[in-house]
Amino acid sequence: MRSVNVALIGAGTVGSGVIDFFARRNGRFSPVPGLEIILQAVCDKSEAALNAAAACGCRVFADARAVLADERIQVVVELIGGIHPAKEFILEALRRKKFVVTANKALLAEQGEELFAAARENDVDIFFEAAVGGGIPIIKPLREGLQVNIFDSVYGIVNGTSNYILSEMAQHGRDFQPVLAEAQKRGYAEQDPTLDIEGIDAAHKLTVLARLCFGRKINFADVYYEGISQLTAADIRYAHDLGFCVKLLAIGKASAGGIELRVHPTLIPQDHLLAHVQGVFNAIFLHGDKVGDLLFYGRGAGKEPTAGAVIGDITDAARHADSSAGGRLWGVQPAADTAAIRPVSDLEMKYYIRFSAADEPGVLSRVAHILGSLGISIHSVLQKASPENNAVPIVMMTHTAKEKNMAQALREIDTLPVIKTKTVSIRVENL
Amino acid sequence: MRSVNVALIGAGTVGSGVIDFFARRNGRFSPVPGLEIILQAVCDKSEAALNAAAACGCRVFADARAVLADERIQVVVELIGGIHPAKEFILEALRRKKFVVTANKALLAEQGEELFAAARENDVDIFFEAAVGGGIPIIKPLREGLQVNIFDSVYGIVNGTSNYILSEMAQHGRDFQPVLAEAQKRGYAEQDPTLDIEGIDAAHKLTVLARLCFGRKINFADVYYEGISQLTAADIRYAHDLGFCVKLLAIGKASAGGIELRVHPTLIPQDHLLAHVQGVFNAIFLHGDKVGDLLFYGRGAGKEPTAGAVIGDITDAARHADSSAGGRLWGVQPAADTAAIRPVSDLEMKYYIRFSAADEPGVLSRVAHILGSLGISIHSVLQKASPENNAVPIVMMTHTAKEKNMAQALREIDTLPVIKTKTVSIRVENL
Repeated sequence: MRSVNVALIGAGTVGSGVIDFFARRNGRFSPVPGLEIILQAVCDKSEAALNAAAACGCRVFADARAVLADERIQVVVELIGGIHPAKEFILEALRRKKFVVTANKALLAEQGEELFAAARENDVDIFFEAAVGGGIPIIKPLREGLQVNIFDSVYGIVNGTSNYILSEMAQHGRDFQPVLAEAQKRGYAEQDPTLDIEGIDAAHKLTVLARLCFGRKINFADVYYEGISQLTAADIRYAHDLGFCVKLLAIGKASAGGIELRVHPTLIPQDHLLAHVQGVFNAIFLHGDKVGDLLFYGRGAGKEPTAGAVIGDITDAARHADSSAGGRLWGVQPAADTAAIRPVSDLEMKYYIRFSAADEPGVLSRVAHILGSLGISIHSVLQKASPENNAVPIVMMTHTAKEKNMAQALREIDTLPVIKTKTVSIRVENL
Repeated sequence: MRSVNVALIGAGTVGSGVIDFFARRNGRFSPVPGLEIILQAVCDKSEAALNAAAACGCRVFADARAVLADERIQVVVELIGGIHPAKEFILEALRRKKFVVTANKALLAEQGEELFAAARENDVDIFFEAAVGGGIPIIKPLREGLQVNIFDSVYGIVNGTSNYILSEMAQHGRDFQPVLAEAQKRGYAEQDPTLDIEGIDAAHKLTVLARLCFGRKINFADVYYEGISQLTAADIRYAHDLGFCVKLLAIGKASAGGIELRVHPTLIPQDHLLAHVQGVFNAIFLHGDKVGDLLFYGRGAGKEPTAGAVIGDITDAARHADSSAGGRLWGVQPAADTAAIRPVSDLEMKYYIRFSAADEPGVLSRVAHILGSLGISIHSVLQKASPENNAVPIVMMTHTAKEKNMAQALREIDTLPVIKTKTVSIRVENL
């Protein structure tokens, strides 16, 4: 029986799920006859966490450095999250030719190229199935099974917190703030929810996905993101009346014109599969030249699904650690170059726009004039009869327009005296 | 540069997709630096196919035996389909310690245990991503990423022909026969469509999936199947009015009571993701103890998606063929035993029933009496006012009932003089 020794750094929610898995198996498990994976060491700052880990027979440490220096450890699992010291731990592990498993999407998105380069230099690899889509197998299929495809688009509902909030807003006609408060109470949202609700977490995940789909280096700083905190129940309702639903969508597209990467609230047709992804569930919809349309759906977070993905990665890492170099073929390939990301202002798309206008004649013509002067044509108008706060909501769907022209139009429209509150615009994707 | 030599047996639709892939790359491709995969030989009975293959620089043969005997060939791709001689070719390849890639679900379902045993004996492996769900990565995630899960259910829309026909019937209110004829004209159905429309192909795929999900040996003969050829547009419409849609569903469940495996037309709630899988698309929905609900969606057939899956498998096989034994960890694990499959007659489920009854008083009470005497309670009744052919259609949804009692009830009901045509019953799954 050959064995591979694993060290876990970080015994929080997901980490404790990994420890539970090993604990139920006396600290070791055998994915196939002849190979045993042993959880040798656990590092955490919490004594309670370490006591729990000690119960499964592994050594426990408050400081990760001792573990990183241990030559017997072949696989290091980083689950502390954040940039520092996670990055230093991972780099140290790679330098010592240990395989790394991580769920750290922020670190991968912001510093991934450096980590992947270090892995290649040291002839080891990084596994990160749990970084995107929790328990959904998406990273490994992209790296291993689908790698013969050239992908031209990826659309993801990859932030469960936002999708839960939007689902509740849509289903019960409630506004953002009370739903967020309830999500926090139920543990679906963090006390500081910024990363989730402002689109940053989704942008991290999009960066990780885009590298694999498009085979290019990506600078996280080039990814546009916008969250859901400005959405209202009214806009979700109007969108619904027009046959759309509103999702926080992570969008990646590659064409001859370049790559676009953006996260923002998006109107998508109600009959698309992504429109049926409700609550904390995630889904990734992508299109490859060979495989055509694909969708992966499942739990995007949670102790058990994410720990399951980490254990899958540990098993893969152990296989690689145990094999001759010949057997270790996978890994993030060195990308040709850093992709130039098209600025959102240069993109063309369709828009949902809602004006709050004084209930008087001529408003629509003034708004339409501004739009027309910037080359934006109107597809349809939905004028609600009943004034709200003495203002009439007018909802428009546009034809395809340039983002920078739309931004200019909104600035001009909002200076009209008949416009009562800031005009709302939401981008549309006809998937 | 190390190289792995591949031989392809069968240059039909999928096989020619594989040849095209290699042809565009001068007969070889390198999935990672240092390794090259070479299409060395192609076997087919068609001269035209062999001429096309020869153009990409590989040797061509009308007889597979010469290729199987060639020691330089490390990976054999079987794409001829059917049981014989595919089985003999694969067994010969395994005995000669070659890795095998196949898309042959019929062979895997009906003789898979023998093939897997031969692979284990010879310390090689069989890859079959393309056997289920065409281009959808489902086999490899089940074998490699999700293997820490214990699955309790799998539901698949795994036959694109049937799903195309049902989608057309539902969307346009058309009956089975004309839609089948059109599907045949468009190439979505074979000239002999039996395997597809009678549920046999779906049962083959369910057998392959169930082995991986439940980790047991499965006898294909134990899998219950029933096709869609008896469905009418009227039943699909009534089901729709009740909030359901009708899909040919492959169902596998594992519980303390045993394993059930069945393929049949099934009413599923309209708001379930599977209800939104339209046309030739496939989807597999499964539930694991760690990962929870998962859904994989994509093209279940077609030259390019399926060839893409085969090339993914060839790449995996090449990695294994090139590595030391230590690196080759995956494979179908020897299952503990052959699963005892619960007979459908012992199962309990809900039913949709449609009677065609004479338009006279007392019919409902006589039918209800029979159902009640067999312990079947009625959940709801939908009686259509307008008689069709002098008979009134009465649609019922039952509570959970035993299949054998329902069969008995239907026999008794159909002997009533007031019942004009054979009563229709369709099973319901409240996913």
